[in-house]
Amino acid sequence: MMKEKTTDKAFRELMKEKAAVIDEMLAGYIFHPACDEQELIAEAMRYSLLAGGKRLRPILMQETYRMFGGSGTQFIEPFMAAMEMIHTYSLVHDDLPAMDNDEYRRGRRTTWAVYGDDMGILTGDALLNAAYETALSVLEVCETPEQYRRVSRALGVLAANAGVRGMIGGQVADMAAEKQKEPLTGQQINYIYWNKTGALIEASMIIGAVLAGATLSHQEDISLCAMDIGMAFQIQDDILDIVGDSAELGKSVGSDAANGKQTYVTAHGLEQAGAEVERLSNEAIGILQKLPGDHGFLETLVRYLIHRRS
Amino acid sequence: MMKEKTTDKAFRELMKEKAAVIDEMLAGYIFHPACDEQELIAEAMRYSLLAGGKRLRPILMQETYRMFGGSGTQFIEPFMAAMEMIHTYSLVHDDLPAMDNDEYRRGRRTTWAVYGDDMGILTGDALLNAAYETALSVLEVCETPEQYRRVSRALGVLAANAGVRGMIGGQVADMAAEKQKEPLTGQQINYIYWNKTGALIEASMIIGAVLAGATLSHQEDISLCAMDIGMAFQIQDDILDIVGDSAELGKSVGSDAANGKQTYVTAHGLEQAGAEVERLSNEAIGILQKLPGDHGFLETLVRYLIHRRS
Repeated sequence: MMKEKTTDKAFRELMKEKAAVIDEMLAGYIFHPACDEQELIAEAMRYSLLAGGKRLRPILMQETYRMFGGSGTQFIEPFMAAMEMIHTYSLVHDDLPAMDNDEYRRGRRTTWAVYGDDMGILTGDALLNAAYETALSVLEVCETPEQYRRVSRALGVLAANAGVRGMIGGQVADMAAEKQKEPLTGQQINYIYWNKTGALIEASMIIGAVLAGATLSHQEDISLCAMDIGMAFQIQDDILDIVGDSAELGKSVGSDAANGKQTYVTAHGLEQAGAEVERLSNEAIGILQKLPGDHGFLETLVRYLIHRRS
Repeated sequence: MMKEKTTDKAFRELMKEKAAVIDEMLAGYIFHPACDEQELIAEAMRYSLLAGGKRLRPILMQETYRMFGGSGTQFIEPFMAAMEMIHTYSLVHDDLPAMDNDEYRRGRRTTWAVYGDDMGILTGDALLNAAYETALSVLEVCETPEQYRRVSRALGVLAANAGVRGMIGGQVADMAAEKQKEPLTGQQINYIYWNKTGALIEASMIIGAVLAGATLSHQEDISLCAMDIGMAFQIQDDILDIVGDSAELGKSVGSDAANGKQTYVTAHGLEQAGAEVERLSNEAIGILQKLPGDHGFLETLVRYLIHRRS
């Protein structure tokens, strides 16, 4: 028991180190203002993108890439940066007064709270566009038809999962669900979680696999594994909104209950929610264990996420 | 004189026909909802994208492509659709209450006025993302390295000109300028017009040129030509906001003056503004006339834009 906690702590430190490396990498992808007019938007993008955060999606992408034998940074790094830009833009827009109206996230004031509503909208737009500008830059280093094919497929996965059939679709459904008085059906909850949270996690892992040259069959395994991880992650988020510590989370707890938000936890209770996180995580680990390559890190990461406190 | 007016009218009809063909094409690029949850966002995207409009950017892209010998639709059409999606998302977000707070555009209620603030934000996001999803689909039809290179470059131009060094940069500067009490400098006006309006017009024409295989030197000519057209177009917009007819424009006139907005016209007066539109247009035509291929249509289009009333 004591040993597990020590391992947990060591892994948490390792995740923090990885996040710090990614932060540094991300800073290099923010554009440099070429004139006075560009300084405000560059600053707001930097403020939004470098607000801390677990960097879970780029870490999952990088580790899946490595597991399938990918090496070097020139193909994977711009996609890691692009993924985090898309995740960040979605938070910047979610926080807007016309959306969730949140003034704090990750222990700091949200983008619109610092720069104003209008800049909140434009900064989100700028991050989404910059994500594509960044990911598209990988086409410039392609030389062989196979490289072009892999990068093209990775770009396609990014756009599909970020859009109306993915994350945005989940945001729209989530918004509609908040206005719905009747209890959400299990199907509705699945749709929202799979898309709003699952889609970017799935895209992260598939892009890692695709760029490393994984077979189609292995890409399908990774897709199932990622959907389990995404669903478990979101249910754990709901649990932490009830039992978590505000200081550790860097945001207020109890906001779902205060907003009357329906979640997996309000539908099934804390105990069943915890059991579901456990079940999904074990299923994800089972898939990883059947795949070739060294899946040790990803396995530990999934176990770590079950017990995460922030 | 009478003849010129007949020609003008015939050309206006031709432009309307081209816009109608593009409307039909655009409708085919809106995703089909696969479940109930996707219906609202699909409807809001359709409402926003198929709101009429001149379709100037896709027309410029297609005609530049043709001028440089491009044929067929599989490479150019998704880029035409993507460009109009980006233009449309920028209008949807510009109209939001936290931005320009406009309830009417092109004679109909704006997206947020119909679907709510939150959906206005998400619909703009969805259109921007769909633009990349659509343009990226062209990579799937590439077979030769040269096709990959051209499409990669076209995608890069699209992302660069839509972003912080292009359109979004112009929107941010425009927003800052509205809060500025001192008169704008000529440099500020140029920055805003070149970026907010010029960048997408430039991207449209360069993408047409790149996909048709134009030389780098011809791409540079097209860039200069497009910047002239973009600047002339925006100054003419300012002129029409003063002397235009609300019914023909499909939006209220006098809004710049009512908002105390500084424009090229407030800085230089109507007469000089009109002369500048004429000068820029002639410069653009001069560039076109030195280029190979049949530039008849583009030339007439530039002349038509000088005298446009909507």
